[in-house]
Amino acid sequence: MRAVDIIAKKRDGEELTSEEIRFFVHGYTRGEIPDYQAAAWLMAVYLRGMTERETRDLTLAMAQSGEMMDLSDVAPIVVDKHSSGGVGDKVTLVVAPVVAACGVPVGKMTGRGLGFTGGTVDKLESIPGFRTDLSADEFRAQLAQIGLVVTGQSANLAPADRKLYALRDATATVSSLPLIVSSIMSKKLAGGAHAILLDIKVGSGAFMKTVEEASRLAEAMVRLGQELGRRMAALISDMNQPLGWAVGNALEVREAIDVLHEGGPDDLREHCLVVAAEMLTLAGRVANPVEGMEMAKRVIANGNAWQKFRALVEAQGGDVRFVDDPDRLPRARYVESVPAPADGYVQRIDAAQIGMAVVDLGGGREKKEDPIDHSVGVVVHHKVGDLVQKGTPLVTLHANDRVRLERARQRVLAAHIIGSEPVPPLPLFYKKIA
Amino acid sequence: MRAVDIIAKKRDGEELTSEEIRFFVHGYTRGEIPDYQAAAWLMAVYLRGMTERETRDLTLAMAQSGEMMDLSDVAPIVVDKHSSGGVGDKVTLVVAPVVAACGVPVGKMTGRGLGFTGGTVDKLESIPGFRTDLSADEFRAQLAQIGLVVTGQSANLAPADRKLYALRDATATVSSLPLIVSSIMSKKLAGGAHAILLDIKVGSGAFMKTVEEASRLAEAMVRLGQELGRRMAALISDMNQPLGWAVGNALEVREAIDVLHEGGPDDLREHCLVVAAEMLTLAGRVANPVEGMEMAKRVIANGNAWQKFRALVEAQGGDVRFVDDPDRLPRARYVESVPAPADGYVQRIDAAQIGMAVVDLGGGREKKEDPIDHSVGVVVHHKVGDLVQKGTPLVTLHANDRVRLERARQRVLAAHIIGSEPVPPLPLFYKKIA
Repeated sequence: MRAVDIIAKKRDGEELTSEEIRFFVHGYTRGEIPDYQAAAWLMAVYLRGMTERETRDLTLAMAQSGEMMDLSDVAPIVVDKHSSGGVGDKVTLVVAPVVAACGVPVGKMTGRGLGFTGGTVDKLESIPGFRTDLSADEFRAQLAQIGLVVTGQSANLAPADRKLYALRDATATVSSLPLIVSSIMSKKLAGGAHAILLDIKVGSGAFMKTVEEASRLAEAMVRLGQELGRRMAALISDMNQPLGWAVGNALEVREAIDVLHEGGPDDLREHCLVVAAEMLTLAGRVANPVEGMEMAKRVIANGNAWQKFRALVEAQGGDVRFVDDPDRLPRARYVESVPAPADGYVQRIDAAQIGMAVVDLGGGREKKEDPIDHSVGVVVHHKVGDLVQKGTPLVTLHANDRVRLERARQRVLAAHIIGSEPVPPLPLFYKKIA
Repeated sequence: MRAVDIIAKKRDGEELTSEEIRFFVHGYTRGEIPDYQAAAWLMAVYLRGMTERETRDLTLAMAQSGEMMDLSDVAPIVVDKHSSGGVGDKVTLVVAPVVAACGVPVGKMTGRGLGFTGGTVDKLESIPGFRTDLSADEFRAQLAQIGLVVTGQSANLAPADRKLYALRDATATVSSLPLIVSSIMSKKLAGGAHAILLDIKVGSGAFMKTVEEASRLAEAMVRLGQELGRRMAALISDMNQPLGWAVGNALEVREAIDVLHEGGPDDLREHCLVVAAEMLTLAGRVANPVEGMEMAKRVIANGNAWQKFRALVEAQGGDVRFVDDPDRLPRARYVESVPAPADGYVQRIDAAQIGMAVVDLGGGREKKEDPIDHSVGVVVHHKVGDLVQKGTPLVTLHANDRVRLERARQRVLAAHIIGSEPVPPLPLFYKKIA
């Protein structure tokens, strides 16, 4: 078997065999197939597509390129969630302790932010001492002990994905359905969870711009996971405005803590309860999402979810004094509010622009190796549909640099469209796929 | 400008600007754009194609990636020819001295063989001492002195093509019209010839399998050359059987010498006269190909073409005793004839199989770095349409290894289809494009 023949076959739109896909993925992972051959193959896959069978084989080959975790001896059902990435998406910080507090073990590996989307790993690292580089053994041990782990992606899981993802980024082959599906699902399969809830974002602040596009992706992943023996469901959720109010790492941790204390923004709380309810249902802990929602509300109200979050921080080396008193979390030097420039209804908030404003403040990264300033960010005070009064605070900026603060001011103002026509609020979810 | 955006634009089927093409080609040549980005771009070009304008810009950018020879001070019109590669194609060895003997300077850079097709550089290296690595200065000096140069491709000419060609070979992006056109024409443009005759082969022993395909390629190159100020014409010629009788390096040199002495196979002589006539017409030395044919015949008959060939060998360091007495050229240890297995008409000779038999005997290469045995080869004794008698010689094999000889015997027998139905001879040419 030769790599060049496999490239030619895909180039000509033919279906690759399981053996050919395995040969290519494993050869590339081991460095026997060079980057340039993988790059040509990725472009051929991008332009010619893959059948469901090929996508499944690709996902399996990528999952099997490294260690495959088996969590069955830790717990009969371990649940995981995956978000396709958004602006202000701190859902994992709330949902993981809520579900774990309901008695369902949550073992989650998560990513760093890139571009306008934030990453849960970066957010957790706002908490001094918090470790996100657990080994596989530490992962298992902590999952067994407290039923909750949220850590960074292990280098041993799906190494093919790491190599291919870096290459896709440099070769304009990111936005391909089979490549996105296999990238996400190979990591999830290797991570060992038995039930996986997908939270696929759609809108200006997401990679997917339409509900149709997001649904196709979600359906492909749900089907693939189910065929490989996982319990799967997907929510298609709105990302046309930031989720909650806060965008920026420490600011989002604070907001998540508020929700765990029965506070925080309504949209975020509601979003988290729905996701938690679906995860509890998938795991078989409750009969349906209505019961799941009740149980989730209960563990927030009785403080168990908060205690679980605190246990998570403690187990991973974080200093709990910083979450017990969130005022101690990293704070920016300049905190300034931006007044609404006019009376009217908030008709649009460009979530990607808000995300990019935070990146520019130093709170995100344009390139993988960029450092992160955990203290900076943007807090929006209104959602689409709200009526605002000229001169009242529209947004609060948290910055450590005056020049950047001024740039962020321009950017967040441009991101808000205020008009005299009333508009309805945006939905939280568009549909569920199971 | 970023390479990844240029890849994305071509991926989406958009037309690249001249600046984008130049940025990509020159960045790649200088090593600033890595192989993997070039590989993804090549696959996008392969699958999305290029407009004529893009192909022209690509050709120019590749030509301008290195030295551009200007031969105007050497002679007002320097003529070159290009063959798309075939089996038994020793036309340059005859035509170049013929045209030069007619008073039109011929400056030609040529390639080595790869796969089933031979290369003129390999053939000339059968002559002990013959140098095919002339510098640009040597090229110019010899062209001025004797009006004839045939050497290998200079490393300084179109270095982008060298890099891109190696990458195309490894990434299944060879057979793309814009990439083939730009590869050939960038070298021709950089080589400095004012008039270029293309000999595009079509058939089982060529890269192009149909006249339509070959015509499209020829038309694209003729148009492009003309737009860039070159005099251009193309012949679409047959390559469904070997050209002439001999296939193999020293054997082909002998056969070319025979033609220069008014001998050799009819098809080869006729092919060479037509190509020479077109080159003389393109150069303006004669008013039309009929006059060109007369002049070419004359310089063969009066020995001037042969003297020019001899001068070429001498100027490039070759030992003329080996061409004065071709029996001294490298000879194989075993020379065995293969008898016709049946009475009948030769209905088909698979030229690619004959070429591969010679490669297997050691006379060609499967990989660029393989060494060449100049002595070995295959001599066919019949052309398609000939009536053969069982037991009379069909082919003569020249080999240095008995095992390989037996393999070649099987292969050349399988390459000949003999049947009772008479078939017409194959044409030499299908059409001319100017």
